[in-house]
Parts: sequence; C-alpha cells; structure tokens
Amino acid sequence: MADLKSTFLKVYSVLKSELLEDPAFEWTHDSRQWVERMLEYNVPGGKLNRGLSVIDSYKLLKEGKELTEDEIFLASALGWCIEWLQAYFLVLDDIMDNSHTRRGQPCWFRVPNVGMIAVNDGVLLRNHIPRILRKHFRDKPYYVELLDLFNEVEFQTASGQMIDLITTLEGAKDLSKYNLSVHRRIVQYKTAYYSFYLSVACALLISGENLDNHIDVKNILVEMGVYFQVQDDYLDCFGDPEKIGKIGTDIEDFKCSWLVVKALELSSEEQKKVLYENYGKSNPANVANVKALYKELDLQGVFAEFESKSYEKLTASIEAHPSKAVQAVLKSFLGKIYKRQK
Amino acid sequence: MADLKSTFLKVYSVLKSELLEDPAFEWTHDSRQWVERMLEYNVPGGKLNRGLSVIDSYKLLKEGKELTEDEIFLASALGWCIEWLQAYFLVLDDIMDNSHTRRGQPCWFRVPNVGMIAVNDGVLLRNHIPRILRKHFRDKPYYVELLDLFNEVEFQTASGQMIDLITTLEGAKDLSKYNLSVHRRIVQYKTAYYSFYLSVACALLISGENLDNHIDVKNILVEMGVYFQVQDDYLDCFGDPEKIGKIGTDIEDFKCSWLVVKALELSSEEQKKVLYENYGKSNPANVANVKALYKELDLQGVFAEFESKSYEKLTASIEAHPSKAVQAVLKSFLGKIYKRQK
Ligand SMILES: [Mg+2]
Ligand SMILES: [Mg+2]
Ligand SMILES: [Mg+2]
Ligand SMILES: [Mg+2]
Ligand SMILES: [Mg+2]
Ligand SMILES: [Mg+2]
Repeated sequence: MADLKSTFLKVYSVLKSELLEDPAFEWTHDSRQWVERMLEYNVPGGKLNRGLSVIDSYKLLKEGKELTEDEIFLASALGWCIEWLQAYFLVLDDIMDNSHTRRGQPCWFRVPNVGMIAVNDGVLLRNHIPRILRKHFRDKPYYVELLDLFNEVEFQTASGQMIDLITTLEGAKDLSKYNLSVHRRIVQYKTAYYSFYLSVACALLISGENLDNHIDVKNILVEMGVYFQVQDDYLDCFGDPEKIGKIGTDIEDFKCSWLVVKALELSSEEQKKVLYENYGKSNPANVANVKALYKELDLQGVFAEFESKSYEKLTASIEAHPSKAVQAVLKSFLGKIYKRQK
Repeated sequence: MADLKSTFLKVYSVLKSELLEDPAFEWTHDSRQWVERMLEYNVPGGKLNRGLSVIDSYKLLKEGKELTEDEIFLASALGWCIEWLQAYFLVLDDIMDNSHTRRGQPCWFRVPNVGMIAVNDGVLLRNHIPRILRKHFRDKPYYVELLDLFNEVEFQTASGQMIDLITTLEGAKDLSKYNLSVHRRIVQYKTAYYSFYLSVACALLISGENLDNHIDVKNILVEMGVYFQVQDDYLDCFGDPEKIGKIGTDIEDFKCSWLVVKALELSSEEQKKVLYENYGKSNPANVANVKALYKELDLQGVFAEFESKSYEKLTASIEAHPSKAVQAVLKSFLGKIYKRQK
C-alpha cells in the first residue's frame, strides 16, 4: 500500500514535468517557477484518497489480473486528474469562504504575493486536467467520454457550490430555509459526484465499460457520498478533535449541517426558538446551547440509527448488482467509511 | 446586419433556457433565478464581435452559399460559447484587478449580495460551454476537436493572464522587466487566441475543415491579435476618450503597454530615468511627464510606422494563402481593425 502511494506520487512528478513543458505555451523561467510552486503547494498534499481509489477500483474490476505498468500509469494519471480537480475547487473555495488554513498550512491566496492571483491559479489547475487527458488519452476509444465525464462532474460540483453559497448568503441567516431536501441537494452536488462517483467512473472507462450501463453504480455512489457527508457533519460536532484533526465550527458558521436539519425536524416550537436564537453565533455560550439541544434531542441516537439504516440499504443495493467485480469496488468504498471516526 | 444580431440574440435566449433546465442538476427556484440573473448581467451585454464573427466567417467559408437555419443556429451557438468564455474571463479578471466598472455597470462581484460568489459564477459560466457543446454538437464528427479547441484556447488565455499577473505583481513595480518579448507573450496568450483565432477556428470546424491543416491561419490571426492589442495600448494614451468610451489609465496602472516598452527601447539613459520616476503613479503630474516623453520620442510616428508595416505584412501573408474563401475571412478581420479609432 505504501508502495502504491509512492508509485502514485511518481506519476505526479511525471505529469508535473510534462505540464511545465507544455508546448501550447511559451514558458519563461518565472512562469514555470510560479506554476511549479503553485502545484507543489496545492496538489499533492492531501490524503489522496480520491486519486488512489481509481487504481484500487481498476484492480478490482480486473478481478485480480495483474495490471501492466502502462495500465497503472493511466489509472494514476486519472487519479491525479481528480486530485487536480479537488485542488482547483479548494483553492477557489478558500477564497470564497475567506478561510485561513488548509491541510495545515495557510490557504494559497494568503501566501505573500499570491492574493487574488490565486483565482487564476485555480483556473490553471482546472485547465491542467484536459492537458493531461489530451496528452495521455487522446487515442483511447473512451477519450471523448472522459472529457464529458470530467465536464459533467465539474458542472455538478459548481452547481452544488452555488446552492451552498446562495443558501448561506451572509446577511440572510435564515434557518427556515434549511431542511433535509436542501441539505441533500447541496451535499449530493457539491461533494458526492466528484468525491465518490468520479473515481469509479474513471476506473470503469479505462476498463472499457460504457457509463450509460452503470447508472445504478452512479446512484449507489452518490448515496454513499451523501452518507459520507452526514458523517462529516456528525463528526464536526460529536467527533474527537484529536482524531478528526480539527475543531468543528459548523454551528458557529451557520452551516446547513445534517444535525441542524434533523434538530429542526424533531424540535418542538420551544426548542426551535433555542435554535433560532443560538445557531450561527460564535459566542461559546450560544454554541453550548445548541449542543445541549442536540443532546436533548438525542441526535447521537438518531445518527446511529441513520448510520445502520444507510449501511443496510447500501449493502442491499450493492448485493443486487449483477457483477461481482463491481460489487467488490462498491464494498471496498463502503468498508472504508462505515463507522469511521475520522 | 441588425438582423444578424437579432438572430444571434434569439439563439442566446434558447441557450439560456436550455441551461436553466439542464437535467444534470436538480434546479430550485432560487438557483435558477440566480443563474438567470448572472447570465443576463454578464453574457449578452458586450459588443459581441467575437461571437458574431463566427457566423460571418462561416458565411465567407461557404462562398456565398446561403446558410440553412440549422447552420445559422450552430454557428451562433459556437459564437455564444466564445461570448460565455469571454464573460468567464472578465468576471474573474475584474475580481483580480479589483476593478469597479465593466460595460458601463458595476463589476459583477460589486453587485450587492454577490461578492466572492462571483468566483463560482465565473466557474459556472465556464462550465456552460461544454454543456452547450454537448447538447448541440455531440453527434458531430468534429465534436472532440471542438472540445480540444476550447480547452487549448482557455489554457493559453489563463497562461497569458498568469504572466500578466506575475509580471505586474504589486510591490515589484520594476520597469526593467518590461520589453517587447514580454509584451508580445502576454498579448499573444492573454488576448489573441481567444479574441481572434477562436472564432475562425470554430467556423473552420463546422465547415468540415481539419485545424491541423490551418496552422498558417492561426499564425496570421495571432499576429492580427497582437496588432489589435498594440492599437489598444496606443489608443489608451492617444485615442479620443469620446470615441473609445473611457479614459485610459495604463500609465497610472503600471501596465506593460506597447508604448512604455517602445519608450524604454528608444530612450537615452536620461529619458529612462524619467520613465522610472514617473511610470505607474496616479499623480497627474507624473502621468503628464510620461506623456511628454512619449511625444518627445515621437511614439505617434513610431506607431504609425508599426501600423502600416503590420498591415503590409498581414496582407502579404493573407494573399499567400491558397484559398480565396480563407483569404476573404482574414481580410474581413483585418478590414475591421485597420486604422481603427475605437
Ligand atoms: Mg470552505
Ligand atoms: Mg465553501
Ligand atoms: Mg464538515
Ligand atoms: Mg482587468
Ligand atoms: Mg487583468
Ligand atoms: Mg487597454
């Protein structure tokens, strides 16, 4: 596994070098240096789960048949395209959220001399994806499907960002806008397609599959993505900060979290008043009031119930799938996230 | 001609309606309203030269054969893709430049309640292009070439933005970085590909041409784009503000303008000192000193010389082209910009 990751990182170095010599642009020393620093800062430093799972899924789809070096390279390149997509979204999201840190370092736009140039850097990250695809996949029979896939998933993610942004529009802090269907829509579009579906879709394409025949796989992965985000919302409040690596601030940030949505659903008029008066305020007393209400409503129990129901449903959908190899891919994803503590 | 523009605007309405019903996203009333307002504000309000010239060029390539309604629609849709691309660049460029107005109204990010959501709106504008292409061109034999074309031109434009941004990095106001090759590189990448080459490339593709056979056309149009930007730089200082519709501020903004580059080239050590001491300052006295030096160096004469030389060279290249139809397309572009006053 450590070996897989180091192979994967070697492919990053190859892709980076190719991008820095892209013949479609006339490079200068300064521009090459800028892009290299920007890539190093933003692309390889995450957990790389999304990227690595293209290779994992591809292996499972090949049912144990050893991958050739070339096949590993191509799966890795697609994995990196997802990591590049993620870097693009994060660089821009941090600007929009006016965030301070990311992956333990200052957000890219906060680095001295970067500032709003980060907007164009985000655009460059995004543009690197079709450059990589064209260089390595142009002659593949599934090239156009790859382009369409990345375009569709990017569109869905940006649309999810939009509803997230307009729902939480500063100055319009209005809890009555939050409900389960709003939450689901944001999560599904903003996170699930690119974090869950995209890796498997890439693996299916390089395995020669037609994505139109795998709508059920897409639906299961989107469902898994929603479940994953509900966990994320839960851990933000009830997780161990030591394990999740940060102190949650969803309550302070007036986030449309699954917890507040469930709380609104289960509250009496009296309890709703507590939420309206305390949610979205940074004063620790307000936060404590919200947390006390969450406990009063037994959201921990409600979540445990949700978690086991989701697991059952997902397992049933997976087992209904005709292909054992596809089942293995989906089970591997589910196994990685079920009852996760971080 | 007024008729062509109204046909073109009708196609905009069709494309907009389709995007607002895109089945890849689960729309809500608020999100549809947001996107519609954002499109109306940013897409159709420009001069539309880039978009309209796809139709013009296509007609010339068809050598007078009347276009069918379907052909006009497709050429218009591609024209709009270029306008969408332009809107995407402008929305983000205004954020990066901290600009105030655009096309006679506040920049989109300055509209109340928009702010940094404009970053994601830029991303959405960009994402609309592959949505339009997929809906209307998926079954065309040149679909993949269209995707590659838009991807390559976007990459080149973003790369041009990057060198523009890092060359003019605030706090590093250093005239010694400016020279003709830096100027040319910025202009070629930031402007020429998407403003000149892209329209003709679209027209060639729908005419069934292979772009690999038209490298010479690309080179001529890139040359024309550079010439166009030199005019822009010239008019910023020497044009009639009544005609160009704004008061130039390139000197104040420390822009890597063709004028300052030429001035640096032609100056004595004494004169260079004047430039170093006065360029990039907003005080009218500093600006006046720079303008006086430009006159001393006869930059108006130098420009007139450049303009006629460019025209000659471009005409010679155009006339060397084997196809009369292609010649007509290129001559039409050149005719529109030669000796322009605005
Ligand atoms: Mg954020
Ligand atoms: Mg955000
Ligand atoms: Mg969270
Ligand atoms: Mg600007
Ligand atoms: Mg700019
Ligand atoms: Mg100008």
